[in-house]
Amino acid sequence: MEYDYEVLTPETASSYVAGADWLAGVVDASTLKFAEVGDGNLNLVFVGSDAQGQGICVKQALPYLRLVGESWPLTPERATSEARAYEVAARHAPEFVPGFYGFDKGSYVLAMENLSDWEVWRTSLNNGEHLPGIEAQIGTYVARMSFHTSHFMVDAQEHKALVGEALNPQLCEITEQLVFTEPYIDHENNEFPAGLDDMVQQLRADQELRVAVDGLKHTFMTRAEALIHGDLHTGSVMVRGGADGPAAKAIDPEFCFYGPVAFDLGALFGNYLAARSRAVVLGRPEPFRSWVDGLIAGTWRAFESEMRRLWPERTQGGFSDAFLDTWLRHVWHDAVGFAGCKAIRRVVGLAKVSDLETLEAGDHLTASEATLKTAATWIKTRREISNPEAMLKAASQHL
Amino acid sequence: MEYDYEVLTPETASSYVAGADWLAGVVDASTLKFAEVGDGNLNLVFVGSDAQGQGICVKQALPYLRLVGESWPLTPERATSEARAYEVAARHAPEFVPGFYGFDKGSYVLAMENLSDWEVWRTSLNNGEHLPGIEAQIGTYVARMSFHTSHFMVDAQEHKALVGEALNPQLCEITEQLVFTEPYIDHENNEFPAGLDDMVQQLRADQELRVAVDGLKHTFMTRAEALIHGDLHTGSVMVRGGADGPAAKAIDPEFCFYGPVAFDLGALFGNYLAARSRAVVLGRPEPFRSWVDGLIAGTWRAFESEMRRLWPERTQGGFSDAFLDTWLRHVWHDAVGFAGCKAIRRVVGLAKVSDLETLEAGDHLTASEATLKTAATWIKTRREISNPEAMLKAASQHL
Repeated sequence: MEYDYEVLTPETASSYVAGADWLAGVVDASTLKFAEVGDGNLNLVFVGSDAQGQGICVKQALPYLRLVGESWPLTPERATSEARAYEVAARHAPEFVPGFYGFDKGSYVLAMENLSDWEVWRTSLNNGEHLPGIEAQIGTYVARMSFHTSHFMVDAQEHKALVGEALNPQLCEITEQLVFTEPYIDHENNEFPAGLDDMVQQLRADQELRVAVDGLKHTFMTRAEALIHGDLHTGSVMVRGGADGPAAKAIDPEFCFYGPVAFDLGALFGNYLAARSRAVVLGRPEPFRSWVDGLIAGTWRAFESEMRRLWPERTQGGFSDAFLDTWLRHVWHDAVGFAGCKAIRRVVGLAKVSDLETLEAGDHLTASEATLKTAATWIKTRREISNPEAMLKAASQHL
Repeated sequence: MEYDYEVLTPETASSYVAGADWLAGVVDASTLKFAEVGDGNLNLVFVGSDAQGQGICVKQALPYLRLVGESWPLTPERATSEARAYEVAARHAPEFVPGFYGFDKGSYVLAMENLSDWEVWRTSLNNGEHLPGIEAQIGTYVARMSFHTSHFMVDAQEHKALVGEALNPQLCEITEQLVFTEPYIDHENNEFPAGLDDMVQQLRADQELRVAVDGLKHTFMTRAEALIHGDLHTGSVMVRGGADGPAAKAIDPEFCFYGPVAFDLGALFGNYLAARSRAVVLGRPEPFRSWVDGLIAGTWRAFESEMRRLWPERTQGGFSDAFLDTWLRHVWHDAVGFAGCKAIRRVVGLAKVSDLETLEAGDHLTASEATLKTAATWIKTRREISNPEAMLKAASQHL
């Protein structure tokens, strides 16, 4: 495959930084050492430090899906989307994202704060680390991004222009296919242990479930509310403990576009479900276990509380004071549904999660079955599920 | 006000057509005579015939809102939007729109079939003309346009690009302001007789109504389902009786954009309500009176039936067979709400309708009050109103 831009290596990354005017002063490029650390599905990621200990992370988009290989081309323009999300976050939620140093359009390179002394939240959850407060911080992040890029704060005409600029068709289609379509049909991308065969057949034959998922897909495809992260699972959150208490930063927003706010919340909730299933089958001790049970509540309550705090500051749209309650209710019920979709794709679809995949076979089956059952219940009864406790109750009935 | 394009007059329209290569062969420009007939709020409209009796309609967008004057600038780019809608309709619903001859981007001129022997449907309704079948044709038109420009027929990535191309921010904002905002606040654009003062104050104080209208506005601003007409009232439909039975053509789609399908249906329903209020206070005889009572049912049933006919032909989106019922239900309930919003703006907002305005004072007040009460009921109970008969029942309780 030919590229019309230079693909960086650990060796060339230093000289790239040294030659980048827009990075002058951020690090001492002459003493910079880089390592490639990308463990994701899409990109090259280099982290380095200079002799003064000043770090930098350089991320470059490849023109294909790294998880699959060059046979799955993927526009490197997704780096432009990622830069857009980081620029917006730097204005409205800087404490919840890495410091952003800039973007080189020609080479699809982003430079940002080096978080190599932070940990991926999913890994931390897998290890049973109790980091109370992370879930609220990430709920606050979703509220800030949603509020400031919504019709509540952006002039109506400008909002339409922003929607048009931020279209992200290729990456949206990945979500449409992998989350909302493939898990419900016989598709070569799907993979799951034979022990789940019967349950997967049941899911696919469940008309009520299929129609509900179709409705959620349609909402994902048509509802341009705010600039959403688009892939906000526990692997897209970096965490750190430390003296000041746990801290969270959202990363990898290359799937961002103007979409339904509920999708980011649902993505978190669905991944919390996988974390909970793991915690239960492994018999994790308190206080970790109760904390994991309460992650949905913690994220939702922080989201709601931040939205209520910001609401009186709205400048656009002419919405009445009481509309916030209606809007929050609509976001909540859609989030319950999206949560189920995200959980199901993690069990039967292309992109798995280590929460479940690293369990031994028996536990994997138990946890996967419970995750699927809970997810289907969430999707089908999303309009009756009125709060996080009801979501947890549904989960605890299956595991 | 200066224009950077030539504004046509009845005198220059002929030479314009003669000089337009893209209109060669449509008419004999050397014998063409034009008259300016624009009675709308936005544009210049010239109709003419040549010596052979071949007609043409030439429509030019002015850079301001004609209803208000040069003090309200308005992009002539709306002609580009109108051309887009006509081009799409020529492919998917040609029998329900005027023949479209083309568009001159530089001068914002559209040329189309001359419908001067047709009549505006609102005028026809005002005169008590019974034209059964019009309402079904227009419902079929909405179904065809919706289906063919939706995610059911358009590739997901292409759909996003089309949404971006068809943004129509200035005209959408007119709807957002005039339909969803101004009628519910004290605004200089509003105008209504003193006898309605109490009722308007009640509407504005009705929190439940305001929140419901906010929700419908939010849907209008965020839900990009299909290329909708955007201003589909009975004044945007041309009708004709004749030997082959009544025929309808939708015109003036300059407000078109990718929005909620329910909005076009609601716009029709809301204007049908004004027509019904007029028919009742004037004591119109049968069969006209029963036909007007059944307009909502006729349009909805034709829309639903055409969608069901087309549904098996869908090629995109991967939606399951049963999703159509869910989608139709969501469109229906939103349409009931939009209908109420469109009816209320026609009574208290900037753009009035002759159905009510040409009534004598006592009848005007009676019809306006009933229209407002029915509209408020529709909006607030839209989720409980399950069919057209229930909408009619609500209307008949007030008049």
